[in-house]
Amino acid sequence: MNAAPSPTPSPTLTFSSEQRLDDGVRERRFSLGEIPGILWTPATTGSAPVPLILLGHPGGLDRMYPRLASRARHAAADGFAAATIESPGAGDRPRHADVDRARADLRHALASGAPVTDDLVDRLVLPVTERSAPEWRSALDALLALPEIEGPVGYSGGLIAVGVRLAVVEPRIVAAGLFAGSFVPRATFDEARRVTIPLHVLLQWDDEGNDRRAALELFDAFGSAEKTLQANLGGHTGVPAFAGDDAARFFARHLR
Amino acid sequence: MNAAPSPTPSPTLTFSSEQRLDDGVRERRFSLGEIPGILWTPATTGSAPVPLILLGHPGGLDRMYPRLASRARHAAADGFAAATIESPGAGDRPRHADVDRARADLRHALASGAPVTDDLVDRLVLPVTERSAPEWRSALDALLALPEIEGPVGYSGGLIAVGVRLAVVEPRIVAAGLFAGSFVPRATFDEARRVTIPLHVLLQWDDEGNDRRAALELFDAFGSAEKTLQANLGGHTGVPAFAGDDAARFFARHLR
Repeated sequence: MNAAPSPTPSPTLTFSSEQRLDDGVRERRFSLGEIPGILWTPATTGSAPVPLILLGHPGGLDRMYPRLASRARHAAADGFAAATIESPGAGDRPRHADVDRARADLRHALASGAPVTDDLVDRLVLPVTERSAPEWRSALDALLALPEIEGPVGYSGGLIAVGVRLAVVEPRIVAAGLFAGSFVPRATFDEARRVTIPLHVLLQWDDEGNDRRAALELFDAFGSAEKTLQANLGGHTGVPAFAGDDAARFFARHLR
Repeated sequence: MNAAPSPTPSPTLTFSSEQRLDDGVRERRFSLGEIPGILWTPATTGSAPVPLILLGHPGGLDRMYPRLASRARHAAADGFAAATIESPGAGDRPRHADVDRARADLRHALASGAPVTDDLVDRLVLPVTERSAPEWRSALDALLALPEIEGPVGYSGGLIAVGVRLAVVEPRIVAAGLFAGSFVPRATFDEARRVTIPLHVLLQWDDEGNDRRAALELFDAFGSAEKTLQANLGGHTGVPAFAGDDAARFFARHLR
């Protein structure tokens, strides 16, 4: 199972730049075909290949970079590589008219106080999920072919619908740390029942852009025999440092 | 604040037996007036006095001993003393007719499928809370007078109504790890709003004797600026080992 490649041949991974962060972590920008990405590997990598954590995010690598790099350094300190790719339709990638239209509808709904309907959530999240999951799988093919990376593989972050999809379809991912901070399509609740890998779900209790009840319902739906929900006081970007430490220990338990 | 004694003079603490556990932890049985208790101190205690964790439980020291001793060893490994006392009306202590009657009514309700009413929860939990909180405060007076214990003080465990009461009335308790695994009287939700110390709340997601919705409502009610809810899959006694480790790190952050 762990070596099964994704069904379609992967585009080539090409490194475009490299730097050492002040703690010695090696950061390399790459392109996977048209998709930009970043790979971080531990300062002390010797000859032994390391496990990998895929860093999910809502899209916009430049905007997300500080938080992604912080999570990557934490992973590197634990002896893990970390990698991320730009989301479809985000950053410098070609826009998608359907998602742009749904985003405009969301802004309008939020501004006018109208409800965010299930239909709108589907139009916002499902196209990104459909496009994103195969790209992550291609990235995984390319990253696992590098001599410095071996696995096992974890997925960490949002969009939560993408994390759930990957947890179901990608057998090389053995553990997922999910961030319950985004809209959840109805179809994702059904997919959640088919997830069986260990999960660590972070919920910001006062996340203004999040439906707490939906997050709790999703946690309940997961089919995994080991699943932990950690809720902390605060808004979307206010995850306390100790919660990051607890998530890191979850991966240390499952990737070593 | 930290040195304020409880308002009534405390009964004397008298040690009755002593043993070393196999990891070197010193375990001493004591009596506080009529109340039996146990004190655990770290194997390596030198001259410096240590912080203290009060170990709450639902009553019945003999039945609870294995789990309490395990938590105490964990605390001792982190450099903390741990102590517990028997609950009013439990173990070898004199019974209380009101609580015995409420317990019989609870058994009857559960056996017949009748709802556990707010009134029944009040009759079950409030008298124990009223009697228990002053006893814990007296125990704290006596324990903090020992040369090997200094503080700060944490409270860990259930009954959750007792933990909430102590978090409100006892200023020497600076952090609480609460176990959301028992019935919650309505009055406890009001008290919870007055709690301001850091909290780490454990919830067993499938606890057959627990109302998950009430546990989430209680977590929401707490007034603390730092509060974490950690929910794990499993029943009442199925708290995973890593959850115990996370709770221990919570106390290490706040008692050192």
